[in-house]
Amino acid sequence: MSAPPPQPHEHQIRSEIAWSDATSITVRGRDLADDILGHVSLGDFAYLLFTGEVPDAAVSRMFNAMLITLVEHGITPSVLAARLTYAGAPEALQAAVAAGLCGLGSVFVGSTEGAARMLSEALPAGHDANLPAIASNIVAAMLERREVIPGIGHPIHKPEDPRAVRLFEIAAETGFAGDYVALMGLVARQASEQSGKSLPVNATGAVAAVCCEMGLPWKFVRGFGVMARAIGLVGHLREESESPLALEVWRRTEREAAVAAAARPAVAPQ
Amino acid sequence: MSAPPPQPHEHQIRSEIAWSDATSITVRGRDLADDILGHVSLGDFAYLLFTGEVPDAAVSRMFNAMLITLVEHGITPSVLAARLTYAGAPEALQAAVAAGLCGLGSVFVGSTEGAARMLSEALPAGHDANLPAIASNIVAAMLERREVIPGIGHPIHKPEDPRAVRLFEIAAETGFAGDYVALMGLVARQASEQSGKSLPVNATGAVAAVCCEMGLPWKFVRGFGVMARAIGLVGHLREESESPLALEVWRRTEREAAVAAAARPAVAPQ
Amino acid sequence: MSAPPPQPHEHQIRSEIAWSDATSITVRGRDLADDILGHVSLGDFAYLLFTGEVPDAAVSRMFNAMLITLVEHGITPSVLAARLTYAGAPEALQAAVAAGLCGLGSVFVGSTEGAARMLSEALPAGHDANLPAIASNIVAAMLERREVIPGIGHPIHKPEDPRAVRLFEIAAETGFAGDYVALMGLVARQASEQSGKSLPVNATGAVAAVCCEMGLPWKFVRGFGVMARAIGLVGHLREESESPLALEVWRRTEREAAVAAAARPAVAPQ
Amino acid sequence: MSAPPPQPHEHQIRSEIAWSDATSITVRGRDLADDILGHVSLGDFAYLLFTGEVPDAAVSRMFNAMLITLVEHGITPSVLAARLTYAGAPEALQAAVAAGLCGLGSVFVGSTEGAARMLSEALPAGHDANLPAIASNIVAAMLERREVIPGIGHPIHKPEDPRAVRLFEIAAETGFAGDYVALMGLVARQASEQSGKSLPVNATGAVAAVCCEMGLPWKFVRGFGVMARAIGLVGHLREESESPLALEVWRRTEREAAVAAAARPAVAPQ
Repeated sequence: MSAPPPQPHEHQIRSEIAWSDATSITVRGRDLADDILGHVSLGDFAYLLFTGEVPDAAVSRMFNAMLITLVEHGITPSVLAARLTYAGAPEALQAAVAAGLCGLGSVFVGSTEGAARMLSEALPAGHDANLPAIASNIVAAMLERREVIPGIGHPIHKPEDPRAVRLFEIAAETGFAGDYVALMGLVARQASEQSGKSLPVNATGAVAAVCCEMGLPWKFVRGFGVMARAIGLVGHLREESESPLALEVWRRTEREAAVAAAARPAVAPQ
Repeated sequence: MSAPPPQPHEHQIRSEIAWSDATSITVRGRDLADDILGHVSLGDFAYLLFTGEVPDAAVSRMFNAMLITLVEHGITPSVLAARLTYAGAPEALQAAVAAGLCGLGSVFVGSTEGAARMLSEALPAGHDANLPAIASNIVAAMLERREVIPGIGHPIHKPEDPRAVRLFEIAAETGFAGDYVALMGLVARQASEQSGKSLPVNATGAVAAVCCEMGLPWKFVRGFGVMARAIGLVGHLREESESPLALEVWRRTEREAAVAAAARPAVAPQ
Repeated sequence: MSAPPPQPHEHQIRSEIAWSDATSITVRGRDLADDILGHVSLGDFAYLLFTGEVPDAAVSRMFNAMLITLVEHGITPSVLAARLTYAGAPEALQAAVAAGLCGLGSVFVGSTEGAARMLSEALPAGHDANLPAIASNIVAAMLERREVIPGIGHPIHKPEDPRAVRLFEIAAETGFAGDYVALMGLVARQASEQSGKSLPVNATGAVAAVCCEMGLPWKFVRGFGVMARAIGLVGHLREESESPLALEVWRRTEREAAVAAAARPAVAPQ
Repeated sequence: MSAPPPQPHEHQIRSEIAWSDATSITVRGRDLADDILGHVSLGDFAYLLFTGEVPDAAVSRMFNAMLITLVEHGITPSVLAARLTYAGAPEALQAAVAAGLCGLGSVFVGSTEGAARMLSEALPAGHDANLPAIASNIVAAMLERREVIPGIGHPIHKPEDPRAVRLFEIAAETGFAGDYVALMGLVARQASEQSGKSLPVNATGAVAAVCCEMGLPWKFVRGFGVMARAIGLVGHLREESESPLALEVWRRTEREAAVAAAARPAVAPQ
């Protein structure tokens, strides 16, 4: 059946990211074959996609280090979800990565978003700021509301998170150790003092501060975590295909749950 | 910017499932408010969506029993993936269900598809068949190719799977105990004899045989597992929200993996 | 390598939903084969999973009607996402359903959650309430904060949403037309009066009110939408497999975007 | 309740990818903070994760170019699925990326896997091969079976795919233009001759040949596509958040489908 005469559309569909013709592909205004392939690294291409600019050496070093910090955190809940999915559908690797990404929300990777938002809102760009006072106010307000302050403290890495230390070193070397980095450090210090606990800046807080320094919007900081973890998940699925652990985790869990459940009396049927 | 003049389209976009106007919604040709809500149960509505017909009592009983068999299998890898995802993103319940569904592939729920395909291809509709000979040939061929015969055997349920027994009882009561059900039973018997192991029809095999009897296409048998498990996953996520287990599973796994890994010598940096 | 001696675990892993032994499967305390299969419909089984009780006839009628209302809404963004996914990976039907579920968030299906939360918080159980005053306060407060009031108004269904009308009829017939149903109606009336627009209760608002009447927690109302839409998505994927539309949608979109993009000047390479 | 005494486990859970202690994180045997951050780019880190080796300059150039080729293909079905998902759940960016990945299966990105498998199986490593004869046999066999030969032909890019040309240039410059690259070219030439159509190597075929040259297993070539597209999807979701197109695509599709469906006669209710 032939289609009906089309209606004029109210809104045009457009995308400025990429397009192509018979002899070329253009991405963010650059010729993919001639100007990008062989000239630009994957991390720099991600920066280009996101900002429209190929990064210079300092920006590239900072951005790549920030992204790499997010790739691999060992056996996380997200990794376990991906491996368990792969065990059920090894023919659909993409679905296993998707399953692993689905849990990168408010508890684990979204905390980066929380820290970036906290810094962005406390310190609008260009403001001549009294950073210690701002940090003190942030911490006092969050402690009073009994909120968890994002970006500080770590259950294992003590007295400091080596990734945060290193990211801030690179920030100093590349010109990105500005007010957001300083504020993140002051928040950690104030929180430690006001709570009496050791709460150093963690990797999450360092990534957030660096993103703010680079002008990357806090609403998309989670996106960097997502793209980075996708790389890490593929690495874990390769290992799972050769040295599986998912089904052993499942069997142990099922067995323990079954033992606990069987000890319960059954409900009498209606 | 206004949109460009639209091009005539080669193919019309159409869907026959549902449409609506100001005062009514029509689903598969029936008025949703007047003819379905309050008159039809969820399982019968699923049958209507899939086949275009409201089932009679016998079909309804068989179809609902078949679907329910697929809903809940305890702590499966799929359930664990969903619970781990929920632990990371409790604000996105839908993503946790999605993660749980992603693994319903060739290993776990896809085996239903495999059994339904085996039966469908062995026994084209209307064919006057020598069922014992067909069963014998199927088993001999698969054993020779060292393939796993789908739909038979179970690690726990012995000497028979109570769900399979019950589904075949209902099939007999509702008029669905035809050639496919008979063939599935014969395949199980032949496989047990030829292999010397106890390989009764399992729930997967019974679901597959019943789907074939009902004329449901083998390519979509997996879809019944997917819709059924979505219900089961929501039930598990409710329990996870009140009585969590995912993070305990994660912590144990991470700890054991970390102990094993730390015992390895590090690679010298380049 | 043998495993290390296991550590005592701090928290036991347990699940009360389902367990099995060699001869039986128990779900929510009932024998699956003997007490459920052949006796209980899919919708009633979902209710049992969620609440631990097999519903009586009135509860069953209300619950099934509520769920069915959520199954099928025609070509939604979620359906399109599922169909586009199926076009790329037809061998992984489960991943296409998962993709369709991923978008059931704050904008489309989460609005049910918002309405259920609004009603639950306004009317704690057992409270002897002045419903008109409560409705008036809700509407005034939300209009002042310029928030969208969930559960009312519809772009197509005017002057009323036939599903809401029908669900409230069934609620009256089954004994579920209590304070939450009344409050939802009053909110719609107040909102219409205060805004000067026609804002009847829509399907979302009716589902939310019914869930509150049934004592189902607002935090899991989204879960009912997710399980219901999983059924609807499988129906759409069956149609997509036989009468595809996804690639036509994609081709038109890509073509229009490409025309728009190509009209832009390229950026000079660095 | 305290946990039961743990059982000895049959299989130890182990992962060699990453682990950490109080003062360090180790990834593939290297200190993340000291040896990787600031020294290694994202693409090179992906190579390290996958192979255990930091690539040298030539390997890095080839690997990054190969990955970048997979990142961005304009408005694909996968991109549309992700954008439609984001429109429904903008608060769950990770779920939108997951939805986009779910469709990277046999039709679109899996074709890379198909091409890599074809090359790997035709040319086991180290074999002294008569490449033209192998290419001729591959093409003749696939044409006889009426199979689509993966990695050749393109609807838009004619007479050649500029990405394939460029990847093969880089392969020549970096020492990766070996037998697999040659074979891929010969397959394209043979297919063009035997079919009488212009079927040059496309980006998929070039990526597959390069992966084979680098010793990357064909079973995980799809994984490179998945990680690369995750980056591209985040870029598209950023654009969608600022310049949306998904809901316009949905509205047009729904409207056209509704017009088509409404023209159909309704089924008489039972």
